[in-house]
Amino acid sequence: MISVGVVGGTGYTGVELLRLLAGHPQSRLSVITSRSDAGVRVADMFPNLRRHVDLAFSVPDLAVLKTCDVVFFATPNGTAMTMARELVDAGVRVIDLAADFRLKDPAVWEKWYGIPHACPDLLAEAVYGLPEVNREAIRHARVVANPGCYPTAVQLGFLPLLEADIVDTSWLVADAKSGVSGAGRKASVEHLLCEASESFKAYGVAGHRHLPEITQGLTLAAGRPPELTFVPHLTPMIRGIHATLYGRLTDTGQDLQQLFEHRYQDEPFVDVLPAKSHPDTRSVRGANMCRIAVHRPQGGNVVVVLSVIDNLLKGAAGQAIQNMNIMLGLDERLGLGGIASLP
Amino acid sequence: MISVGVVGGTGYTGVELLRLLAGHPQSRLSVITSRSDAGVRVADMFPNLRRHVDLAFSVPDLAVLKTCDVVFFATPNGTAMTMARELVDAGVRVIDLAADFRLKDPAVWEKWYGIPHACPDLLAEAVYGLPEVNREAIRHARVVANPGCYPTAVQLGFLPLLEADIVDTSWLVADAKSGVSGAGRKASVEHLLCEASESFKAYGVAGHRHLPEITQGLTLAAGRPPELTFVPHLTPMIRGIHATLYGRLTDTGQDLQQLFEHRYQDEPFVDVLPAKSHPDTRSVRGANMCRIAVHRPQGGNVVVVLSVIDNLLKGAAGQAIQNMNIMLGLDERLGLGGIASLP
Amino acid sequence: MISVGVVGGTGYTGVELLRLLAGHPQSRLSVITSRSDAGVRVADMFPNLRRHVDLAFSVPDLAVLKTCDVVFFATPNGTAMTMARELVDAGVRVIDLAADFRLKDPAVWEKWYGIPHACPDLLAEAVYGLPEVNREAIRHARVVANPGCYPTAVQLGFLPLLEADIVDTSWLVADAKSGVSGAGRKASVEHLLCEASESFKAYGVAGHRHLPEITQGLTLAAGRPPELTFVPHLTPMIRGIHATLYGRLTDTGQDLQQLFEHRYQDEPFVDVLPAKSHPDTRSVRGANMCRIAVHRPQGGNVVVVLSVIDNLLKGAAGQAIQNMNIMLGLDERLGLGGIASLP
Amino acid sequence: MISVGVVGGTGYTGVELLRLLAGHPQSRLSVITSRSDAGVRVADMFPNLRRHVDLAFSVPDLAVLKTCDVVFFATPNGTAMTMARELVDAGVRVIDLAADFRLKDPAVWEKWYGIPHACPDLLAEAVYGLPEVNREAIRHARVVANPGCYPTAVQLGFLPLLEADIVDTSWLVADAKSGVSGAGRKASVEHLLCEASESFKAYGVAGHRHLPEITQGLTLAAGRPPELTFVPHLTPMIRGIHATLYGRLTDTGQDLQQLFEHRYQDEPFVDVLPAKSHPDTRSVRGANMCRIAVHRPQGGNVVVVLSVIDNLLKGAAGQAIQNMNIMLGLDERLGLGGIASLP
Repeated sequence: MISVGVVGGTGYTGVELLRLLAGHPQSRLSVITSRSDAGVRVADMFPNLRRHVDLAFSVPDLAVLKTCDVVFFATPNGTAMTMARELVDAGVRVIDLAADFRLKDPAVWEKWYGIPHACPDLLAEAVYGLPEVNREAIRHARVVANPGCYPTAVQLGFLPLLEADIVDTSWLVADAKSGVSGAGRKASVEHLLCEASESFKAYGVAGHRHLPEITQGLTLAAGRPPELTFVPHLTPMIRGIHATLYGRLTDTGQDLQQLFEHRYQDEPFVDVLPAKSHPDTRSVRGANMCRIAVHRPQGGNVVVVLSVIDNLLKGAAGQAIQNMNIMLGLDERLGLGGIASLP
Repeated sequence: MISVGVVGGTGYTGVELLRLLAGHPQSRLSVITSRSDAGVRVADMFPNLRRHVDLAFSVPDLAVLKTCDVVFFATPNGTAMTMARELVDAGVRVIDLAADFRLKDPAVWEKWYGIPHACPDLLAEAVYGLPEVNREAIRHARVVANPGCYPTAVQLGFLPLLEADIVDTSWLVADAKSGVSGAGRKASVEHLLCEASESFKAYGVAGHRHLPEITQGLTLAAGRPPELTFVPHLTPMIRGIHATLYGRLTDTGQDLQQLFEHRYQDEPFVDVLPAKSHPDTRSVRGANMCRIAVHRPQGGNVVVVLSVIDNLLKGAAGQAIQNMNIMLGLDERLGLGGIASLP
Repeated sequence: MISVGVVGGTGYTGVELLRLLAGHPQSRLSVITSRSDAGVRVADMFPNLRRHVDLAFSVPDLAVLKTCDVVFFATPNGTAMTMARELVDAGVRVIDLAADFRLKDPAVWEKWYGIPHACPDLLAEAVYGLPEVNREAIRHARVVANPGCYPTAVQLGFLPLLEADIVDTSWLVADAKSGVSGAGRKASVEHLLCEASESFKAYGVAGHRHLPEITQGLTLAAGRPPELTFVPHLTPMIRGIHATLYGRLTDTGQDLQQLFEHRYQDEPFVDVLPAKSHPDTRSVRGANMCRIAVHRPQGGNVVVVLSVIDNLLKGAAGQAIQNMNIMLGLDERLGLGGIASLP
Repeated sequence: MISVGVVGGTGYTGVELLRLLAGHPQSRLSVITSRSDAGVRVADMFPNLRRHVDLAFSVPDLAVLKTCDVVFFATPNGTAMTMARELVDAGVRVIDLAADFRLKDPAVWEKWYGIPHACPDLLAEAVYGLPEVNREAIRHARVVANPGCYPTAVQLGFLPLLEADIVDTSWLVADAKSGVSGAGRKASVEHLLCEASESFKAYGVAGHRHLPEITQGLTLAAGRPPELTFVPHLTPMIRGIHATLYGRLTDTGQDLQQLFEHRYQDEPFVDVLPAKSHPDTRSVRGANMCRIAVHRPQGGNVVVVLSVIDNLLKGAAGQAIQNMNIMLGLDERLGLGGIASLP
């Protein structure tokens, strides 16, 4: 059994991580920390976990965390980078669900996150945990930067086009819509049911932190930096991301359906839908899955890709478990067999 | 492996049944029928089941169904009673998720369902599939009447009080609230998002079909027929039932918390919450679980019981799998380990 | 034109009050205060009011408020009672939308609100602003205690039965469901969309502050104190209260439909629906209206009353405007002609 | 008083039209027709209209309709074009809320709507009822084609850029999101609460009927046909459209904020928000208003316009009343003073 530690498990990615770990046949949750809620039983905060998780939150203690095989950080940005070095030196594999290790360039990181990076050497070493791109590197990584939710949906949708070099990178548009759980579990007026339900709005049009992360990934895939316009929207539902992606084809001779199916044919967690499909976010709710459809409206030179994930699963906790499985040489699908429940 | 047939799997209880069967380690779905959708692949109708269910719907065929070990009916009322006899005679175990075998008295059945019962002898033999009451009888049953959703929540909440004979049965009130999935997956104006969301209403105050079913169960528990006022309400959410139950204590000396905990201490799917709790329906969403809290407001002689289930799980498909497990001598919890996902 | 002041207008009752005042032909909003948001333009906080309200919030200043004809308090409990005396002495009519003047007995007030009452003499003088009961007294009142949302829905539903003395007051049950806006506009985890949508739960079963307020009103109507069990529930929608009321008839010879229609025949804001109706909360959303249906299930001796209001209109801001109209001798319906919009 | 007839008032645009007409000081609803619901009282179908609308639906009768000053068609596509000629010849002004008179070219109409146009001469004469473009022509029109909901939001957002000729028309993107009421009030599985809530999806990517309507309007504004990619999405809420519009500037020297403010400075129902704003759809819910914000992310050459309307008001019934007011020489704002209610 793999001994697992979770630092900061009181948010939505945290509770999903706990739910997945409770059903994972090869892992054992050894410690779960929360400075503010130390002493509270996990199942008292999250009643869905009654009879499944018996631990209480404890004060973070590096000595205890060092005894784990793997430690997940489900903390706010800026925490993992202050603790990862010591864990890594003790031989612990680290998976950060926050943004600390996602951007390769410390200057870019500082620009978007507002503080200097505390651990630039590990930043250089860390592997970006998108298995569909970096599976081999993840296998040997000591630190995995679990991708953001929007970046997962957007990159998986654009990758086949960029890798095949058939889309004009001088202007790509990613219009992305997220459920409210993406804003986290913290007291806020803006995300009250009375503010966020029965309404829809864009936010962060001037610039969202996921923009440099997406651009970094697309640049690697394309071999050159694309111009990307990225607009996120707040959608009146709990879970789900729907990315609607637009580009202009430079080569209209390709069979896009075949291209996408071929690119993802061996991927356990990317499902290319039949031509003419419109994936809905509920088809992946609670499941570690990205469903994608590709369209050419009216047979023109514009390509539209529809990419959906559950922001808390393939966009966070599910992908983190997928990364853990890969890092430890387990079957990548272990503990991730949950099926989206409908309705 | 147990060979399973499902008759009528295009509704919400059907798709949940398919989801649970897909994750059940000892069962194999052999046939799924739908007269109107014969030929349609299950995963085309329910994309969440892509990669999990490979079958297509077929026209119902008794010859094929007879080769199954168990057949579930997820059909409208009135169908199972016309097919069950032949299956039972062929040695097939039958679990009906509709109402055909729930009421012991054919005259009462006819009064509430509007047609004569087609199979009164099997009605007499059928076992009411509430495991917390009838576990032993279910083990040997050839036909199990899977309880209704409201009746499950209401009976589990009242049972300890009635069995202990400490509540005045001259007037009990069950004020029950259900998510919209209880109305099924059929075209209807009343249950459009635009009609049923952002609103709340009672329905069926004059008399709901679940009233005689509940009364039948409570009568058995109390040893006498109670007077029950039952009012169901349509709640603007997809899943979940919350039953708020009211009665007057005839004996205020009992420790109600202890009574409830003791009654359900060995039950895998009934969870008595700590004193002062208010269970929310999401804590059981997607899980085969009933969570119950018991209160005495201001320490008076009124008892208030709060009982929540997922109407599609413990109120339908989950309880059906639980019954299948019992009937076939399997671990009752097999395939029912899913944890409610929160948020 | 009537000069109106609003103290504390940053909550949901506040913004509804502003919306109604903006459409009221005889009133002019002169001042709107908020200590924490002084200087902020109202329309910047509430974009729906752009082009309709030009004021900014200002620091509360009694000298300014004294120049108004009417001052509304849309403040937390405990504020109005510290300011009302000075305003009343200056000849200002005061309408408190909080609870400061609702309970006649200062000892009861202190028990439920946790602090001593700061102004017991005005408490004695204040008129409980339920026009259907106290219209004449309201006309001359200097201080009106605007009723709570639950108390409005529950009292209007029970009143005809109690006034006719045909219901057993030894046990009444009020099972009430409220939209989330009843919890107000303040940062809180519990009322985030991700916590409160797609779920349903009871709260305050041990005792809710609206219980003594309801009991006080029912006692006046019945001439004796009833035993009332009151359980509020949090419903996954923004607005609306649905009270389901239960009692046992002591006289089953009355025509209940006629009784209710007769009681409310001259009331502009109480609408008795035809027999067998099930009012939905959306039918009063945004409107100052209470819709009521009365049932006797299966013709027995139990009466079930269904009473719906918009908690922010007839349950708060709308009723406050109604009271203002009465106090000032205007047509009671002025500014309250808004029709619920459907869907 | 203006005598108004409504043909086909049982849908969502119909009920909103009735609500607005009930509050309109200069109009009187004389007749409301519905073939299928003839005889049903309007207020029995739509309880929000109790005490406001006393009529019953009647069978459509041209003789009666001819006595009206104005007749609105709130019918499915294909109805108005068979009845309009006779009404126009009788001197009745006609406003069609369906699509019959929106596309100038009968061949294009037939291509997208699947049947030949029944009245091409009136099609040629009809005025496209977007007051911000065609106010003068509307004043004298005998037939007004009330614009579609998406076309209203998209055109109002793009117009200032196209009229100023500062955007590259070789590729524009309109990513539009609509609440479910856009699908109408008809029995359907796809739009059940259980199907459409808690999920998000695109639809009609291959081609939506509003595409030629939008393109027609943008062509007139630009003086040349633009290439437009239009993708509509179904959003889990009742009302509201949010159009997110993308283009590349050919002239980055313009002050976009000023351009938009200037373009709409005299418009009563278009509100340009301050720079950096993100309008939410609820800020226009129930109101005849379009709110617009314009952005240049990171100061680049891409322009992003956010445009929100209530699809049933400015996108349908509200705009129809606005057109009626213009046609009849009334104050354009009459009966349209309703303020969005928040929350």
